[in-house]
Amino acid sequence: MKIVDLRGRYYKEVEEVQYLIKRSDVETDLYEAAVKEIIKNVKERGDEALVEYTEKFDKIKINPEDLIIPFEELEKAYDEIEEEVRWAFEVAYERLYEFHELQKEKSFFKEEDGIILGQKVVPLEKVGLYVPGGKAAYPSSVLMNAVPARVAGVEEIVMCSPNPNKYTLAAAFICGIDTVYRVGGAQAVAAMAYGTETVKKVDKIVGPGNIYVALAKKNVFGVVDIDMIAGPSEILVIADETANYKWVAADLLSQAEHDELAASILITTSEDLAKNVKNYLYNEILKDFSRKEIAEKSLNNYGHAFIVEDLETACELANYLAPEHLEVVTNNPFDLINKIKHAGAIFLGHYSTEPLGDYILGPNHVLPTSRSARFSSPLGVYDFVKRSSVIYVSKEGFERVANHAINMAKSEGLEAHALSVKVRKEDI
Amino acid sequence: MKIVDLRGRYYKEVEEVQYLIKRSDVETDLYEAAVKEIIKNVKERGDEALVEYTEKFDKIKINPEDLIIPFEELEKAYDEIEEEVRWAFEVAYERLYEFHELQKEKSFFKEEDGIILGQKVVPLEKVGLYVPGGKAAYPSSVLMNAVPARVAGVEEIVMCSPNPNKYTLAAAFICGIDTVYRVGGAQAVAAMAYGTETVKKVDKIVGPGNIYVALAKKNVFGVVDIDMIAGPSEILVIADETANYKWVAADLLSQAEHDELAASILITTSEDLAKNVKNYLYNEILKDFSRKEIAEKSLNNYGHAFIVEDLETACELANYLAPEHLEVVTNNPFDLINKIKHAGAIFLGHYSTEPLGDYILGPNHVLPTSRSARFSSPLGVYDFVKRSSVIYVSKEGFERVANHAINMAKSEGLEAHALSVKVRKEDI
Repeated sequence: MKIVDLRGRYYKEVEEVQYLIKRSDVETDLYEAAVKEIIKNVKERGDEALVEYTEKFDKIKINPEDLIIPFEELEKAYDEIEEEVRWAFEVAYERLYEFHELQKEKSFFKEEDGIILGQKVVPLEKVGLYVPGGKAAYPSSVLMNAVPARVAGVEEIVMCSPNPNKYTLAAAFICGIDTVYRVGGAQAVAAMAYGTETVKKVDKIVGPGNIYVALAKKNVFGVVDIDMIAGPSEILVIADETANYKWVAADLLSQAEHDELAASILITTSEDLAKNVKNYLYNEILKDFSRKEIAEKSLNNYGHAFIVEDLETACELANYLAPEHLEVVTNNPFDLINKIKHAGAIFLGHYSTEPLGDYILGPNHVLPTSRSARFSSPLGVYDFVKRSSVIYVSKEGFERVANHAINMAKSEGLEAHALSVKVRKEDI
Repeated sequence: MKIVDLRGRYYKEVEEVQYLIKRSDVETDLYEAAVKEIIKNVKERGDEALVEYTEKFDKIKINPEDLIIPFEELEKAYDEIEEEVRWAFEVAYERLYEFHELQKEKSFFKEEDGIILGQKVVPLEKVGLYVPGGKAAYPSSVLMNAVPARVAGVEEIVMCSPNPNKYTLAAAFICGIDTVYRVGGAQAVAAMAYGTETVKKVDKIVGPGNIYVALAKKNVFGVVDIDMIAGPSEILVIADETANYKWVAADLLSQAEHDELAASILITTSEDLAKNVKNYLYNEILKDFSRKEIAEKSLNNYGHAFIVEDLETACELANYLAPEHLEVVTNNPFDLINKIKHAGAIFLGHYSTEPLGDYILGPNHVLPTSRSARFSSPLGVYDFVKRSSVIYVSKEGFERVANHAINMAKSEGLEAHALSVKVRKEDI
């Protein structure tokens, strides 16, 4: 195996890149006490606490009756936004809906000699969606979180956001969110988990958020379900000499602009490509790029280019890093699909730029980060349903299996387990 | 709504039974520091730490080379156990395998005007199974945790148990566990999460355990995936006057014998049934029951009988409590199936006693507890696979969606997201 990076470092094994993995150093201890206090307060004092925190943290003075954003505001936002944006949202909603319908799971039953066994798939009843305010207010997140819940058949979807802009409200309108609450942070999470006079209690809370939101979600996990806690965004581009360096550079930058901790990694068989991408990024695009400060920090700290001897090695390295987004920029990208084991979403070919997947194609953009693609999936319909086993045993079926159960109960020393079978046997 | 319990208390709404819900009062803070210390030590000192902890906690003196239980011991255990138990294990394995195969999910792809979208379903690579030692060593747990992983296609399944008995080893043999390690507690979880010289690092850890194991699993979550943290066991029996009181009593006892915190709840339309069940339990079966001490505590604290006016009310109450196990003991149990929304496993009819499901029927016995059936599912094949989105966009497909993505990027102020689409547009 031969791997070298643009900084001139050589690697003999994929594990040697593990220094790339650690990115976040947030001292969660500093926030934990504050989050616990907020949750306790919301649980005990309900709306009153929400109003106080909204004034304190979001600098918005409201009364409890303003906690619900009136439906008319959503409708108005939908009418107000630019026509081409509204159209894009509508197309995105439709494409997302269509794709996620393919994920729907059916209940099943089988019958065999007097024993019926099955699995009943039931949507969650109530889901709460958190949408950050301010700079990180992404209307696409509303679509990505709401559509799979909608497709799953969730009865009621509510949303919390401290200060949603018109795009976010328009997206909520398109998704048919039942109620939008003007509340953010850990207090929003607490309200959705425990309920207040105004905010309805839900069964699952999804959506991104800052450290307060993330810690609050962890804290209420068990009382309600939560989605994964997302780490900083990542892209890994596998490319050969057929790749267009400008296109690859733009794709890498589209992650770097998200967050100073975002990681953008190129793995290529072409040293020329790696050098061209780097030069173009630093000497051309970044020069007058609006989000230069964020992107430059991200690229300097977490941008990497590796040169490998072949595409198989590139896949091995990619599997080790298990990236959130993986692009394969070659002429025959489908050739590699069986070599790719771990990635949240795999973008194949020159035109499959990752931002298309963020917005419009149909698959979800909520994806496993920080190597968790080894064991996690994109957000999907499966996250908004749950299953129950269904069992029916007739007298005949009972007689076929009864003794086996008694013998297993004996091996575990569970007398009453055996007894519940025996009392029925005796009465037959 | 009319609900009364055998203690003479009346209820007007199902929410009034919420005092039943809180059962555990374990002060986890007391254990957390110890667990963190163990994990740190295993991470840093590997096998050496495992050997020390095994001597300290499990009172077993071993060398690093004894950490692996030789395959011959598994084979020997399989040969040694009683023939009828071995047979029961084999039948259980086969029935479990057959049922779980129905849960298998397929990859899918769809193509539409130059855009291919799909979802690739891939099994996890390595899974670690924890099996408690001592009194709670349940061979059926080995089967229940290993079979769905096996059906999913997991390449390697390892198991940790501090002091497995012959039944547990025989079950491991039947499941074809790749390696069994003689190590328990938080140290076993740490070893499987981070790897040591001898213990292989896995991607997901499943299986029950004491408070140390549960806290260690929570702690390593993120580094690896974990299954749910199980609470004390629960059964809820809905029964009408057609139910046999002896059978119902035995079924309730089969949960009560597990654990002093286990809950056994009867909801019935027949006051006579409730009284007969109670009398029979306390005056007959419990008298010389081997696990009397545990069962009596459990029944006194967490045993309840409710009398309701009709079966619909019974279902409402059951949905509120969202029990792990739900029995419907009536002549037409299928009539109620659509009224039952939340339960881990639903057992229908007089002969479907819950212990049959614990052992032999086929569905999994690892089920959501503590009301989490509102949002969680039985352990299944879906817990041992993960999905990746697959996206291919041709030039034609690109042209159809490019502008929408640019417009959405604008609404979010993400310049490089738009740029990655624009650079391609310019070059076309």
